[in-house]
Amino acid sequence: MALNPQYDAIGKGFVQQYYTLFDDPAQRPNLANMYNVETSFMTFEGVQLQGAVKIMEKLNGLTFQKIGRLITSVDSQPMFDGGVLINVLGRLQCDDDPPHPYMQTFVLKPLGDSFFVQHDIFRLGIHDVA
Amino acid sequence: MALNPQYDAIGKGFVQQYYTLFDDPAQRPNLANMYNVETSFMTFEGVQLQGAVKIMEKLNGLTFQKIGRLITSVDSQPMFDGGVLINVLGRLQCDDDPPHPYMQTFVLKPLGDSFFVQHDIFRLGIHDVA
Repeated sequence: MALNPQYDAIGKGFVQQYYTLFDDPAQRPNLANMYNVETSFMTFEGVQLQGAVKIMEKLNGLTFQKIGRLITSVDSQPMFDGGVLINVLGRLQCDDDPPHPYMQTFVLKPLGDSFFVQHDIFRLGIHDVA
Repeated sequence: MALNPQYDAIGKGFVQQYYTLFDDPAQRPNLANMYNVETSFMTFEGVQLQGAVKIMEKLNGLTFQKIGRLITSVDSQPMFDGGVLINVLGRLQCDDDPPHPYMQTFVLKPLGDSFFVQHDIFRLGIHDVA
């Protein structure tokens, strides 16, 4: 496959779609459709998980109900297998916690007319104290 | 190719090697060997560059001389073409500027017995004010 010229729109569209599901506890279980049963990798705050079942156990186990999210940047690059590399930087506020900077990287792989998440790395950042 | 079981050591070793070159202005031009002349992509603070020549123009054009770097986390995942996805979170202090959080993502592709950087995304983070 070749580079997908729509990589930037694909990246931005995916990020919007993914976080719409993630940020609503009622819709969060539907994220399962974005991961492959065997070949998806997630690293969540340093914990490595493989496959949609284990990934969803992690995501469904998150207990916060209210998420405030501010996306600072979405940087996407086309990959040579037709996939898209996406890097997100933002801020996340869970329930009544203070907001935290975070970063998340996705690698989307083409699957028919769509994509699934092959790689997902999430990290909360450090607070600076002025 | 299959998943490389050494992905974690490869990721950590690469990060150390890359920043050793990057952080020394005298050695920084040697980073050219890590990028492919045509097929390497870099996104540097939102600016997209392709190919080792343009990437090195950017890196060699950085004027700071003294870099203080603190790496907070290195998360790596094996890729199905034998490559490695690497996510770095850290802090960067250039000359006499205040330190800034930053994130950098690399995708290493296998090339013979080694790797080159196929994808590179760099972003400085936001300062929190307490």
